[in-house]
Amino acid sequence: MFSMRPIGVAYTPYTETDGVPKGLGAAHQAEGVLELAPEYEPGLTDIEGFSHLYVIWVFDRVEGYDLIASPPSDTRTHGVFATRSPRRPNAIGLTVVELLGREGRRLQVRGVDMLDRTPILDIKPYLSSVPESELRRGWLAEAEARAAGSDRDRDPGSGRTLG
Amino acid sequence: MFSMRPIGVAYTPYTETDGVPKGLGAAHQAEGVLELAPEYEPGLTDIEGFSHLYVIWVFDRVEGYDLIASPPSDTRTHGVFATRSPRRPNAIGLTVVELLGREGRRLQVRGVDMLDRTPILDIKPYLSSVPESELRRGWLAEAEARAAGSDRDRDPGSGRTLG
Repeated sequence: MFSMRPIGVAYTPYTETDGVPKGLGAAHQAEGVLELAPEYEPGLTDIEGFSHLYVIWVFDRVEGYDLIASPPSDTRTHGVFATRSPRRPNAIGLTVVELLGREGRRLQVRGVDMLDRTPILDIKPYLSSVPESELRRGWLAEAEARAAGSDRDRDPGSGRTLG
Repeated sequence: MFSMRPIGVAYTPYTETDGVPKGLGAAHQAEGVLELAPEYEPGLTDIEGFSHLYVIWVFDRVEGYDLIASPPSDTRTHGVFATRSPRRPNAIGLTVVELLGREGRRLQVRGVDMLDRTPILDIKPYLSSVPESELRRGWLAEAEARAAGSDRDRDPGSGRTLG
């Protein structure tokens, strides 16, 4: 077993799980603040130069886990390690945020998707991306295709489907 | 404090820290195996469809931390949260790997950079990238520019510098 202690806390607009955008096409544009405990502030030196950061945090209001998850983006179930489900063997969350600014030990960021006052375990610089052209997104891409198909079936006259 | 238990182990070619490619231009093309404990195998259902995965793991052979780090890619120091240093308040590692194949509870992957037999805490699907054009890489970009400059200074007649 490994013991992890929070280095700080995330302040976000989401006080309840239901408020966090989830599922297909969910946009994460919400702004929030990552506030470190005072003793860790020197660890933020030079972080201002990075546009994006990884935030590693704890789903601290989740108990237990399921190896087979039912993600909101699909009607089918999938293995928990093939999903972002919070009910994981280790309740670790991972979010990429855009760094908007820093004031001392507080980072203003965009793209938070964790609940308000979530404990933060680590912050790392985001250094490089996998090109979109090389990404395959498995069941998620299939669920999106099915959803697009059923939208067309449900609403053939909406005028939104071109071609 | 939060307790985390390993869900499996990473088998990699690196038995010593010195063997792991580090610093500017380090390429992570090494192949390895992520092996889950038998009880977690159902959690891998449908993971085959994803080309890339996040692996969250523990720097289990590191003790202690420094808030100011001396990364191998620069002659200057930086705050630990602006680096990938293993000596962090929570010794958590994060690696993006390419998924090459799966056999039961074993994932064959490319891009490992952790030591052999490193404990794994979590695996998540890699779903989207920040476009390279939107990324700023702070001190790392500056260090690269300085390194390129000093290479030219050191070896002006090498013929490798075009333009």
